[in-house]
Parts: sequence; C-alpha cells; structure tokens
Amino acid sequence: MTTLCIANNRTEEMVGDLAGTPPAELRFAGCGAQRMLWWAEDGDVLVLPWGPDPEYLAYVTGLTGVRADSLAFVVPPPGAHGDQVLTADRLADPGFRAELRRALDGRAVDEVLAVSPNGAVAELADALGIGHAMPGRPFAAQGGNALVNSKAGFRALAAGAGVPIPPGRVAGSPAEVEAAIEDLLARGHSVMVKVEYQAGGLGNEILARDEKVEPVGAERVVPLPDRAAVAAYVAERWTWLTGGRGQRVVVERYFADSAPLYAEFVIGDTGAVLSGCGEMVMRPVVVGEITPPVTPDAGARDELVREAARLCEALRVIGYRGTVSADAVLTPEGEIYFHETNARLTGSSHLHHAYAGRLLRPEHRGSRHLLELAGLKVPSFAEAVAAIGAAGLAFDRERGTGVLFSSDFGPADGSVMYCAVAEGPEAARALEGALLALFAG
Amino acid sequence: MTTLCIANNRTEEMVGDLAGTPPAELRFAGCGAQRMLWWAEDGDVLVLPWGPDPEYLAYVTGLTGVRADSLAFVVPPPGAHGDQVLTADRLADPGFRAELRRALDGRAVDEVLAVSPNGAVAELADALGIGHAMPGRPFAAQGGNALVNSKAGFRALAAGAGVPIPPGRVAGSPAEVEAAIEDLLARGHSVMVKVEYQAGGLGNEILARDEKVEPVGAERVVPLPDRAAVAAYVAERWTWLTGGRGQRVVVERYFADSAPLYAEFVIGDTGAVLSGCGEMVMRPVVVGEITPPVTPDAGARDELVREAARLCEALRVIGYRGTVSADAVLTPEGEIYFHETNARLTGSSHLHHAYAGRLLRPEHRGSRHLLELAGLKVPSFAEAVAAIGAAGLAFDRERGTGVLFSSDFGPADGSVMYCAVAEGPEAARALEGALLALFAG
Repeated sequence: MTTLCIANNRTEEMVGDLAGTPPAELRFAGCGAQRMLWWAEDGDVLVLPWGPDPEYLAYVTGLTGVRADSLAFVVPPPGAHGDQVLTADRLADPGFRAELRRALDGRAVDEVLAVSPNGAVAELADALGIGHAMPGRPFAAQGGNALVNSKAGFRALAAGAGVPIPPGRVAGSPAEVEAAIEDLLARGHSVMVKVEYQAGGLGNEILARDEKVEPVGAERVVPLPDRAAVAAYVAERWTWLTGGRGQRVVVERYFADSAPLYAEFVIGDTGAVLSGCGEMVMRPVVVGEITPPVTPDAGARDELVREAARLCEALRVIGYRGTVSADAVLTPEGEIYFHETNARLTGSSHLHHAYAGRLLRPEHRGSRHLLELAGLKVPSFAEAVAAIGAAGLAFDRERGTGVLFSSDFGPADGSVMYCAVAEGPEAARALEGALLALFAG
Repeated sequence: MTTLCIANNRTEEMVGDLAGTPPAELRFAGCGAQRMLWWAEDGDVLVLPWGPDPEYLAYVTGLTGVRADSLAFVVPPPGAHGDQVLTADRLADPGFRAELRRALDGRAVDEVLAVSPNGAVAELADALGIGHAMPGRPFAAQGGNALVNSKAGFRALAAGAGVPIPPGRVAGSPAEVEAAIEDLLARGHSVMVKVEYQAGGLGNEILARDEKVEPVGAERVVPLPDRAAVAAYVAERWTWLTGGRGQRVVVERYFADSAPLYAEFVIGDTGAVLSGCGEMVMRPVVVGEITPPVTPDAGARDELVREAARLCEALRVIGYRGTVSADAVLTPEGEIYFHETNARLTGSSHLHHAYAGRLLRPEHRGSRHLLELAGLKVPSFAEAVAAIGAAGLAFDRERGTGVLFSSDFGPADGSVMYCAVAEGPEAARALEGALLALFAG
C-alpha cells in the first residue's frame, strides 16, 4: 500500500498571506518540508517543494530502512510565490497533476498524508480520485484547516471545552484591543498580542508596562508605560495586528518565566492517540525542544495530556483528522494555560513518529530523552554525517542513543537541525556538548 | 428568580460591519428586538434598544399572563451606530450599567438570555457578577459567537459532522472564487454566493448561466453567460463578497424550486432539545413561514431533524449554548442540504417558545399550524388589536386558534407581523385571508 505524502509546510492557513513572507523564511520552510522523508515507507510517493538532496535522502532512508529507489518524488513547477513551498497554485498545476498520476499508476494509495491537510490537498486528492484516502477530507475541503489554526478560534474552542486559557479576550476593533491590553497591563500583567494566523511566534508581540520580560514565543517586547502608549501602539500596529485584512486580534496575559510545553496527538475517527509531549528549550529564546518534558512533575504532565486530549476531542467532533499539537505554558505557580493548537505535522512530529516510533526499539522508548535544536553550522550535510560517525556520536540503533540530523538547512544557511538521543536530560545535554565541540574547530 | 433579557438583535457577528447597514434596516431590527417581551416572566429585567411601546407591552403581557408592572426595562444611551440596536458600546456604557445594577438589586438572576449570546453580553454579565448565569459564557466571551455564525465556518463544521451541504466550497482569492463559481455554472447549476457574516439573505446573491431562477433567499439573480462574465462579476463585487475585509467567500450550488426548511433547537450542557421546525412561505420570495412545515413528508422531516441534531451536537461540544436554527433546503428530488446555522434567537423562536410553549395548551400543541408573515399595514397597533378582537379573529386560548400580532413594526413602516394559528395549513391560510380582508378596506 502506498501513502501519498504532500510536504506542504507553510500554508496560508498557518501564516496568513504568503506574499508577506521573506524569501529566506520560505527557504527555511522548504528545507523543513523535506522532513517528510522521515515518514516515507517503501513504495510511497512524495510531493516535495524541490527534489530531495541525495545525501539527505540516503541518510534518512539508511536510518528508516526504506529502499530509496522504491520511492517516487514529484515536484510541481514554481507558483506565484516561487518554488520554496507547496502553495495551492503549485498543487493545482495540470502538468504536475499529470506527472503525479503517472507516478501513482499501479500503486494503491491508502493514505494521503500532508503536512497541512488543507483545502488544496483535499482538492488534489479529489482530482486524483483518492479523496477517500485523505483523513478528514470533508472538513479540509471546506476550509476547516483555517478554523483549527485560527488563534482567535482557538480561544473560543478551548473555553467552550473548559480547557484553561490565559486571561484575555478576542478583540475586533481598535477600541476593544486597546481596552483589552490596558485591562491586563493595569492589573500588573504583561500581555501577549497575537495575529490570528501566524506560526513560530512570528505573529506574536509581548507588551509590558514596566517589568523586564524575556520574549519567549514572540519577536520582541514593547514597553507601554501608560494607556496613551497603548493607544498609540494599537494605532501604529493595526494593519499588522489584523493581518492586513480585518482579522480579529488575540490579547492575553503573558506568563513570564514559564515553561512552554506541548502535547501532540493524532486524531482519528473514534478518538485521539497521544504521540508525545515536550518542552521548549530556551537560551533565552526558544532554540529547540526536549521530549519528554523535564520541568513538569508527573501531576503537571498528566494535566497537560488530559486537557490537551479534551481539546482534541472538540477538534475530532468538528471533523479534523490528523496531527494536532496543543501548546501550553506551565507557570512558576504550577498552573497550566493553553494558548494554541497547531493542526498539522509540526516541528516536533518527526521526533515522535520517526525517532520514537521507527528508530527506537520498543524496550528503549520509555527511557530516552530527545533533545533537538537547530542552527549547527556544518561544512556539508555529508561531511557532518561522516564526522559524527567517525567520532562515535552517531545514533546507534542497538544502544538507542546518539545524534540524529533531523533537517538539512544547508540550502538556507549551511546548518543542520540535530537531535541528541540519550538516557536522560543530562546525558542528552552532554551528548549535545560533544557534538558542538566536534564542529567548533 | 429573574432572567436578564438582552434584546441585542442585529450584531456584528450576524451582519458584519453595522456601519454599512441602512438606518431603516436598523429600525426594523430594533422593532424585532422588542419581541424579547414574549420571553418575559414575572420579575424579569429587560434591556431593550428603546423603551417598550405601552400598547405592545400590554398586548404581549395580556397574552402571556405576565404582570407588566413586575418587569423592569433598562435602555442604554445611543452608541456609535445610534439608538436602534443594542451594540457593544451601548452595553458597555457606565451609566447604563449603573442603572442596570440598580434594576437588578434585590433580584436573583438565574439566567442571562440574549438574542445574540455574544462577547459583549458575556462581558456585561461578568461585570454584573452574573457570568455564571449566562449559558455558554466561556465560549461567548472568547468570540465563539462569530465562529458559529460564520457561513464559511458552517460548511467546515457541517462537512466534518457528515451533514449534507450543497456542492461547493469556501474560497479565499478572486481566482478561487471565480473557479468555484465557473465549476458549478459549467455543470449546468445555478450558484449562491454568500458573504461570511450576514443575515436574512442580505449577504447572498444567486448567479445563473442561462436558466431563469427565482431568487429565494437572496436579493437578486445575476446572469453570467460565460467565464469572462464570472471574472468580471468577481472583480466588481470583490469588496462586497469579502465583507470589505478579506473574509472568505462561500460558493455553493443553488437549488431552485426547493422548499426552505429549518429545525430549531436549544442547546444545553448535555444535549439539544428540539424547539420545532418550519418552512419558509414564498410569494415568490420569502415573506414568512409556517410551522410545522407542510412540504416535507414524515421521512424528510425526520431527516431534517436528525441531521440538524448532529449539527447541534458539534456546536454543543465546542461550547455554544442557547438557540440554534439549522437551515436547509428540500429539493424537488427529495434531497436535503443544510446551508447555515443561526446561533441566536431567530425570527422563528417566539413561535416555538411563546406561542407553542406558552399560549397553546398542551392538548393543542400537536394539532396546530402557525402561519406567520410580516408587512400588514395597520392604522396603529392598538387599533389593529381592537379590530381583530371585534371581528372575532383574535387568538383564543380556549380554542387554541386565532390571530396573534408578533411584532409591532409601526415605528419602521406602520406594519405588524402577524401569525395565524389554526388547525391545519388550509385553515391558517383561510384565517390569514380573513385578517387581510379586515384591513384591506
């Protein structure tokens, strides 16, 4: 059986209008999209923004045990936003569709797996006559993906499900946004404002009255000493806050010094299955993650998973199928607040699906920590792989420990994303230290 | 126990930006808001756009048996959009809130009942310290009302719930809208396009290639003989189609010669209870409704209620509480397609809540048809009431038949909305005939 894998990382449902996204960022997104290779099984067909780098392909399939020559890759021509990400217009290209049909000929597709299971994917699946193989196709075909990735919609769904969210509100007019911000600032809190559709903290800003705040999950901290400053901020940032098209604005309390956590599930027809949970690593801003999380105790971890499962149940009932990450913070007081769901394959999904699910032996799964970070500059992907092999740092299936290279960001900035797999958080950090030392010379 | 009734008919969640609504239409909406009187019980407090007309108040309370002098009315000062409807700014007025607190003093509020249970109502309830008495407050407070009144969101929720919807899609760009329209027109169908937030058919237009179509549920039919005409239409109407702020556009097949039906429920914490179902009356456009519906046979009526109940279950899970009308069409081929939900007290709610629920005796409830229409010009509300009394046409509780005046549209255009209650559809039409004859002179 064949899975049709569609690596449409970075869609308009995720980030709003792609026209506003810098080209360098699109290239990073395209490199991230190549992680779809970690999902490939023998005989699968992959639609990628560009053809896989042979070294990265050989590396991934060498670890997953997939026969690289059994895979088919189809790359559509560039679209209105270029050739870095799989936009709807690229997926609709007639020549591409003809080629994809040829690639699928003789293969029985039993699943359509997309990074973002959106309307463009549903339309493509329908056109190929394999709509039935796309989980949640009816919901996706009617734009449901936008619904479940909206940060405004999230607050209503979460509140409706009784899941704790930060104090705050969804505001529609400048006066409402100003009042909502001032209300929190005046009570001595700092504030996170969020654009309805964005990802990776790019649509977030933190606002503070006088306290010194580290911007975790946002690009910057804006000091707003009084209400007049709030009004001026809202006026100045209105177009940005509303996505340039009258979107609603999320205004909520920002919890400083909190641990950012997530719990990820795969939602099916009858329920949701936990993939895993994790914690962002901050130095001082988010640079990676560790799974399982280290800050929450067993009780907090249970609460994280339990409340996230309630969110997933709401998404299941409205028709979403596929991966969902529910993101939360654990405050210094031990309270958990959820602040968004990401309904797509996320930057964590490969840790759970591929590393824990495919590379780790069952007897190791409950006793390993995975520490993943991006930005390790390397001479080349191939040389990096050779170097960790020679140094004895490479992941070893027998031991269930070692370094994995998750992504090749070579085309973007000459870096790789790496994951240290070890028997505990300290061992993972030690392994990371050895890796960094190897490439520090 | 006291219910705080908030007659916020016509909100931004219903119709988009109120600034674009003609004053005459706001006045009609304000008159409709006065129907909240049909819900009042002894000791209730009502927030109205303007104070109740004494004749209308006397008429309604005379029928419901409520002591008019036990009710308290509070009217906020005008807001940015005037004094015709209860906008968020009016509900936030500090002087109004102080007066409302005084009116509520000594009364134990056990329910906050709003026409539109939106964020402004939740905020008011919280400020009054009675947020707990508002069903679905957490969901409403976070903007959930917009979610459940979005016509784009509806298609995703319905598709996700497996409820039949007309073929079509939710489209975001001019190219997508054009393609979606052309796709249907080229297959020989006519098309309904819908603005995401509107009510009463004001945000709908029907598009047809060459067939002659009656515009049911829309303001007009636009002939589009070829794809170039479609492109020109989309370009010309783009601002209107997107609500002036980049909203998504619903494009779906329009079923001519179909019976417009609805099923209305009240959603509570553990399930939804059917209020009733009905059918729009067309002469040739919608002028009123009849309940129970007459066109569908028992099987179709069962399907209408069963599928609507599935929609309600999705809304319940995401956190909405209160009245929902699920609107559908029954095609000449006997198929039912749902096209929107209205999550508020609708133009039908008083028929079920007040007439069937309060005025009809239990033994009459299963054997009466209610035919309601608007637009009967009368000398004055009081004279109209006197005239039906003198003619023996007025509703009689013993018999469970007769004419009711639902709304006083005197301030808008000198008309009343009337309801003929009779033992069957023919008898209701005969009673209506007698009523019209009475005022024809």
